[in-house]
Amino acid sequence: MSAQTAADRSDGPRSKRRVILDAAIDKFGRDGFEPTKWASIADEVGIGQTALYHYFESKAHCLLTIMSLELERSLSKFTIATVVAPDHTGRLRAAVAGAYDVSPREALSARILLAHTDLLATERPARREEAERQRARTLVRAIEDAWASMAQKGMDDGIFAQRDARQTSFALLALVNSVWRWYRPDGSRSLAEIAEFIADACVRLVGDDPAPASER
Amino acid sequence: MSAQTAADRSDGPRSKRRVILDAAIDKFGRDGFEPTKWASIADEVGIGQTALYHYFESKAHCLLTIMSLELERSLSKFTIATVVAPDHTGRLRAAVAGAYDVSPREALSARILLAHTDLLATERPARREEAERQRARTLVRAIEDAWASMAQKGMDDGIFAQRDARQTSFALLALVNSVWRWYRPDGSRSLAEIAEFIADACVRLVGDDPAPASER
Repeated sequence: MSAQTAADRSDGPRSKRRVILDAAIDKFGRDGFEPTKWASIADEVGIGQTALYHYFESKAHCLLTIMSLELERSLSKFTIATVVAPDHTGRLRAAVAGAYDVSPREALSARILLAHTDLLATERPARREEAERQRARTLVRAIEDAWASMAQKGMDDGIFAQRDARQTSFALLALVNSVWRWYRPDGSRSLAEIAEFIADACVRLVGDDPAPASER
Repeated sequence: MSAQTAADRSDGPRSKRRVILDAAIDKFGRDGFEPTKWASIADEVGIGQTALYHYFESKAHCLLTIMSLELERSLSKFTIATVVAPDHTGRLRAAVAGAYDVSPREALSARILLAHTDLLATERPARREEAERQRARTLVRAIEDAWASMAQKGMDDGIFAQRDARQTSFALLALVNSVWRWYRPDGSRSLAEIAEFIADACVRLVGDDPAPASER
């Protein structure tokens, strides 16, 4: 359901858009965005340069599209994962679990998004790039709002400690997202283990400060 | 002291290297790396293209140098800030405080470093770029080791809760570094306020899990 995004809906049955995006995710995610030649995506998918430019006006346009689709997925996942949670702590845990309930390609997308967030800070020269950047920025704000609202509600009900909800949400998202920087599918830690470690860390983060005890 | 790096020491008294680096930090930090034209740095500093290439073989080489100098600064700061701390919690707080005890230009460098960490993942085609990337990677590992060792010692002495020290250090560094993504000198939060918020969060992070309490 969450895969049924605005971008997907614009694809006709013979559209190569999704195939190009998948090939680009694999290349950008494994080899890096900068070293990947845009023409190599066309070769990968078996289409010509002209057809490639029909879908994306540049490599950056494709990257920005991957980023906003990943943000859409992340927001959908948050919404679905948290809607049935029984209480505030359960909702926070469900949000974290949802963030790591991803396919290998979604994990690559999350990694690409994290590595290129700075691209969202400055205006793009090309029209379609700029439109996709604006879309991504709107989604980033919506995700931050969703996490801040979750934190605020837990504070309002006295379950989470009273703090700045916005700054708390940045800290929670930092913990959750930073994993994509080092996570590798063939690494020593499974996503399930990581999800539990980070969920526990997030619960401590919204909890009370420990009493200042002398260490001596 | 921490400013006296290997790269600085190689500068003669008439070297333009530091001036170029400062101009690049200002441009990359404010306008972004990708939109900044490499030639514009030469104009900024008032030197010719040939002189510019004498110091850096490419825009990426300059970026990687900014990154490894920032990593050097960060590691020095950690070492100096934590060496006199009286106990484990004090050391953790001092490490966080040190991370935010920066000049405006160092804050820009930290932001540039965070935004381009993915550049360190893949081999560079040019020789001097690759040397600088290797140097940066070594420094990243040294910083991660320093934080992990701090966490491990606190656990060994029973002050921090027993957890995977490596994963704990990643979580601590994620909290500390993520601030550079959104921090602006003219923003509503001062670095001193941020430092206190993040130090408290880090102390909770290495603390005990709250007892699982029913919320009803």
